[in-house]
Amino acid sequence: MSGRPFRIGLIQLSAGYDKDTVVATHEHKVREAAGRGAQVVCLQELFDLPYFCKVNDTDHFDLAEPIPGPTVERMQALAEELGIAMVVPIFERRASGVYHNSAVVVDADGSVLGVYRKMHIPDDPFYYEKYYFTPGEIYRRGTGAAETGFRAFDTRFGRIGVLICWDQWYPEGARITALMGAQALFYPTAIGWHPSEKEELGAQQVDAWRTVQRGHAIANGVYVAAVNRVGFEAESGTDGIEFFGHSFVCDPFGRVIAEAGTGPTVLTADVDPARIEDTRRNWPFLRDRRIDAYGPILSRWLA
Amino acid sequence: MSGRPFRIGLIQLSAGYDKDTVVATHEHKVREAAGRGAQVVCLQELFDLPYFCKVNDTDHFDLAEPIPGPTVERMQALAEELGIAMVVPIFERRASGVYHNSAVVVDADGSVLGVYRKMHIPDDPFYYEKYYFTPGEIYRRGTGAAETGFRAFDTRFGRIGVLICWDQWYPEGARITALMGAQALFYPTAIGWHPSEKEELGAQQVDAWRTVQRGHAIANGVYVAAVNRVGFEAESGTDGIEFFGHSFVCDPFGRVIAEAGTGPTVLTADVDPARIEDTRRNWPFLRDRRIDAYGPILSRWLA
Repeated sequence: MSGRPFRIGLIQLSAGYDKDTVVATHEHKVREAAGRGAQVVCLQELFDLPYFCKVNDTDHFDLAEPIPGPTVERMQALAEELGIAMVVPIFERRASGVYHNSAVVVDADGSVLGVYRKMHIPDDPFYYEKYYFTPGEIYRRGTGAAETGFRAFDTRFGRIGVLICWDQWYPEGARITALMGAQALFYPTAIGWHPSEKEELGAQQVDAWRTVQRGHAIANGVYVAAVNRVGFEAESGTDGIEFFGHSFVCDPFGRVIAEAGTGPTVLTADVDPARIEDTRRNWPFLRDRRIDAYGPILSRWLA
Repeated sequence: MSGRPFRIGLIQLSAGYDKDTVVATHEHKVREAAGRGAQVVCLQELFDLPYFCKVNDTDHFDLAEPIPGPTVERMQALAEELGIAMVVPIFERRASGVYHNSAVVVDADGSVLGVYRKMHIPDDPFYYEKYYFTPGEIYRRGTGAAETGFRAFDTRFGRIGVLICWDQWYPEGARITALMGAQALFYPTAIGWHPSEKEELGAQQVDAWRTVQRGHAIANGVYVAAVNRVGFEAESGTDGIEFFGHSFVCDPFGRVIAEAGTGPTVLTADVDPARIEDTRRNWPFLRDRRIDAYGPILSRWLA
């Protein structure tokens, strides 16, 4: 794979309902990342808000913003000022009754390259996303060859894919985005522990989350960068959620090359296209895919 | 997922060109596994032969056997005697000029349930498999719904999937086999270190191999059992290969529940359908698959 190396930055923070403060804190940390040489900076899922999906509340739809809208425009200005590309995940109001869990990709000149809208929507206790988010749609690509909602984006520094949180458990999304030429897959995320489960299952949950994503890197020969939030978020009528952080970057052979703990963190790591090339020459998985035999993957169940 | 728990056994051994001795050693170890309660026992890839693909040699086609043939019949008798199901991977002669890297699934009454023929064929220095093995074909399933070469088999004890070695790097094969209702995916394998690479890359290669397969377990909520060979095999004109063992079993959340080192080993572990059910209720990935949007996975490249 051609292209020059580029440095990525991951911003792992907590968030509350005071949006001005939250956005200002993120701006501060994005500047820190850029100061450390980051050229493509990714924020966490729904970065400017608490994870409001812990309950179903019609008023929460007021939290959404259009694209472009105030928060995205502020990040566009920041990207232009710093000369960096950014992945900006927000709660998107697209139309009355059509809301998405989205990520806006902003290039280094401040322009919007495009929007990825979360394709796989979870719905589990205190993660009631099906209530809020219309799933991303399929769209016809320029070639007319295929329809899908998965996308890759050419930033000034490199070609990146963006997927969001629950998407990270689905090898299909990683595969399709890698086949689109993405050199790095970004997964802005909001995943945490239920306080009642943390002691027994917490470490295993982090490990499964990291492992399945490292698997995507290995199977596809791409870099993977997961950007999770941190902090405990209380919610009336629930035990709250402790977001577990552990944002990380792994290389095309699944080696973790940068990793955070459970506190606010700015991570940086380098994406080297030469390493992608070398990995795929030595472990040439893409050569041998049996695309004639994968049709059944489009089924729900085959037994 | 319904059904009762069953115990699986993995036989990790070395092999030489004295087939009678190799098969006798395997028989001995299969009896040991059965003695420890194993009900479904899986042998390593090309179990009764050295890994002969280190060179291209027309004479090596003499090593193949038909199905059924002497070695498979011997394993059928063993399975019937012990009342266990077996996965028996051999070099299959199907016709003049049509040879496969195959795994025969034998039920506990000694009958052949079917044959899986390796779908993804590697071809890398000293792993010249494309020279020897015709890839497994797609076939029309009973439902007429889909064509594929991936398969699941109902043994007396549980429903299992079988894939072979290089297949383990492909999420598509694991996904399709899991959707066919397999409770455990067996990966008979022959993977090793090039002596010149072992010191620098050996541990990372084992880790990538384990990680991508644990990822299959997590993404699909199934048990995964990888059965590798051990021992150094010399080959004229090469530095030989040191097969790295490390056979393992992981549960539907990717937790390693049994693991070998680099020596001859009989591993056993229990497959519990209740744990599959519990895992898939708590992490319901199969519910949210975007089968409407996965069409591009049938393409070679999408950029």
